[in-house]
Amino acid sequence: MEKRAYNFSAGPSMLPEEVLEEAAANLTNYKGCGESVMEMSHRSKEFDNIIKTAEKDLRDLMNIPDNYKVLFIQGGGTLQFSMVPMNLLGRHGKADYVLTGSWAKKAAKEAEKFGDIKIAASSEEDTFTYIPEVGKGDFRADADYVHITFNNTIYGTHYPYIPDTGDIPLVADMSSCILSEQIDVSKFGLIYAGAQKNVAPAGVVIVIIREDLIGHADEKVPVYLDYKTHADKDSLYNTPPCFCIYMAGEVFKNIKKKGGLAALEKINREKAARLYDYIDSSSLYKCPVREKDRSLMNVVFVTGNEELDKKFVAEAKAEGLHNLNGHRSIGGMRASIYNAMPEEGVDKLISFMKKFEEDNK
Amino acid sequence: MEKRAYNFSAGPSMLPEEVLEEAAANLTNYKGCGESVMEMSHRSKEFDNIIKTAEKDLRDLMNIPDNYKVLFIQGGGTLQFSMVPMNLLGRHGKADYVLTGSWAKKAAKEAEKFGDIKIAASSEEDTFTYIPEVGKGDFRADADYVHITFNNTIYGTHYPYIPDTGDIPLVADMSSCILSEQIDVSKFGLIYAGAQKNVAPAGVVIVIIREDLIGHADEKVPVYLDYKTHADKDSLYNTPPCFCIYMAGEVFKNIKKKGGLAALEKINREKAARLYDYIDSSSLYKCPVREKDRSLMNVVFVTGNEELDKKFVAEAKAEGLHNLNGHRSIGGMRASIYNAMPEEGVDKLISFMKKFEEDNK
Repeated sequence: MEKRAYNFSAGPSMLPEEVLEEAAANLTNYKGCGESVMEMSHRSKEFDNIIKTAEKDLRDLMNIPDNYKVLFIQGGGTLQFSMVPMNLLGRHGKADYVLTGSWAKKAAKEAEKFGDIKIAASSEEDTFTYIPEVGKGDFRADADYVHITFNNTIYGTHYPYIPDTGDIPLVADMSSCILSEQIDVSKFGLIYAGAQKNVAPAGVVIVIIREDLIGHADEKVPVYLDYKTHADKDSLYNTPPCFCIYMAGEVFKNIKKKGGLAALEKINREKAARLYDYIDSSSLYKCPVREKDRSLMNVVFVTGNEELDKKFVAEAKAEGLHNLNGHRSIGGMRASIYNAMPEEGVDKLISFMKKFEEDNK
Repeated sequence: MEKRAYNFSAGPSMLPEEVLEEAAANLTNYKGCGESVMEMSHRSKEFDNIIKTAEKDLRDLMNIPDNYKVLFIQGGGTLQFSMVPMNLLGRHGKADYVLTGSWAKKAAKEAEKFGDIKIAASSEEDTFTYIPEVGKGDFRADADYVHITFNNTIYGTHYPYIPDTGDIPLVADMSSCILSEQIDVSKFGLIYAGAQKNVAPAGVVIVIIREDLIGHADEKVPVYLDYKTHADKDSLYNTPPCFCIYMAGEVFKNIKKKGGLAALEKINREKAARLYDYIDSSSLYKCPVREKDRSLMNVVFVTGNEELDKKFVAEAKAEGLHNLNGHRSIGGMRASIYNAMPEEGVDKLISFMKKFEEDNK
């Protein structure tokens, strides 16, 4: 039996060990209520308490203003790629997208089914190794929204600033950075994030939406894809992914216990700095990302030799450092160091990298 | 600490205790691989084995023909209410629905957004207490499909026959009866079932679809709502609800171990017969459903006195018999006795009902 690994997967990814242990202890009988959370009616008092507490804790952690709804929805970021335009293109049928990676491109491509989509900026010509500078002047004045991908899981970039879109609602995919840092929610019209990186097991997406953006979907939009459906029923229009929401709630409690997002952000900055500093100082590894745009969550690096990259990933795995391969579309290495990756994991990785560099001179 | 209850919830509902125990034992470290199933990359070898085994076991259990795809999709039955018409209305834009309860009505109402929907038959005028007899002559010859709700969770009815639709594909919502009995999949064009009754925790829907029905969605259909998206990628187009799929797979193994659907159906028939026989013999309780159309899974009954119904539900709860209230739309009582409800649970319920009848003469 292998002990628990340091799992650098980009998602699904590590969850805090103490949260998993608590979930295991309650798995057949949640707090002695006689039922597993997996078996509870979503209309029960127990589950009502679970989902309400989860929402409240998330609101506390992110300091979400009262005029925003928090929704728990299924279908992943992929369904949000459709729901965002289907709900928000109501006024002028136009939206502007900034392309900073594969997910941003998928989001834009999907939106094109539903309206007039303009690419306001893109870093594709430089393999998405940086975040373009964009501001009011880059967007159409009558755009219904501007869409950005705040952290780019595959390319290891992150917006070092929040674009100023004036009165145009800013929509951000924060799947791989939600809860990793403090952000000012009021700067955004809508934030969505798949849970499977910093929040919970895969199967739920968190949507934080300003209330005035709800209720504008065409009447032909599928009922599940209308934000109003979920907002009106506090995410209980139909059976929600109860166990995922429970796990999210447990993670929120865990983050509060650890001091909230200020404390986590500090640790995340230290973890990332340690790794990037080592990479920049090494003669074997190279991080292709422009320094100020580097992600705190997804650290990509290469040796410049594909065979050596593969050897690295395999040997790391044997040392209990899992899933260090880059995304299958670009290769190389990627260390996803989400909230639940302990500092020791990063230290072990750096030790391994040093040894590997030594061995492969 | 209360011991595990007999949970008669209509869904989410009981899971086999041994499956929960095994999941708990593996929750922080699945089979010693160093990761929880909740933390695994959906592209990992481990998860690939989990999802492939789950599909294979389901195919074995239900004897699913090779020309059918098995898909694991998020969004619940509600999303299927939209996906079915959005994918299947391609030829003539017409479909016929049989109304046997609230879910059937919701399915039909949603379909009306996407085409010409005809109600071929309905038992609404008799509060859905029976299943209409329908056959070829009741459907439009150019209907793209016929939709039925094979088991009606709220009203406690179940089709005692499979409607003959000739060449028109038959689509069935089997959310509350899948895996409870042997059925001939080849009689259906598409079967869908939310997992949260007989299969797994809420968060995944099983879709069994004949291959010729895939690939006819309009190009403007949201990518997540096109069956082809999921079929082409073996349900891994985007991150699936991995933990739910894992639990489903564990339940499938458990059913195989117990002798498969023939063995389960026998037990289910015995459990239901015991309960219905007692209700029919009692002078306090009454089951409003026509005898031949009674569900094996959802047994509805009333005392005829609302106050007494409430007292029944509260006192039963105190005895460890949970969630015996009827659906909030119709009141009364409902005992959902899915696969995972042990025979002892049904016996305990009958004992309690006898005592309650005695006490409330």
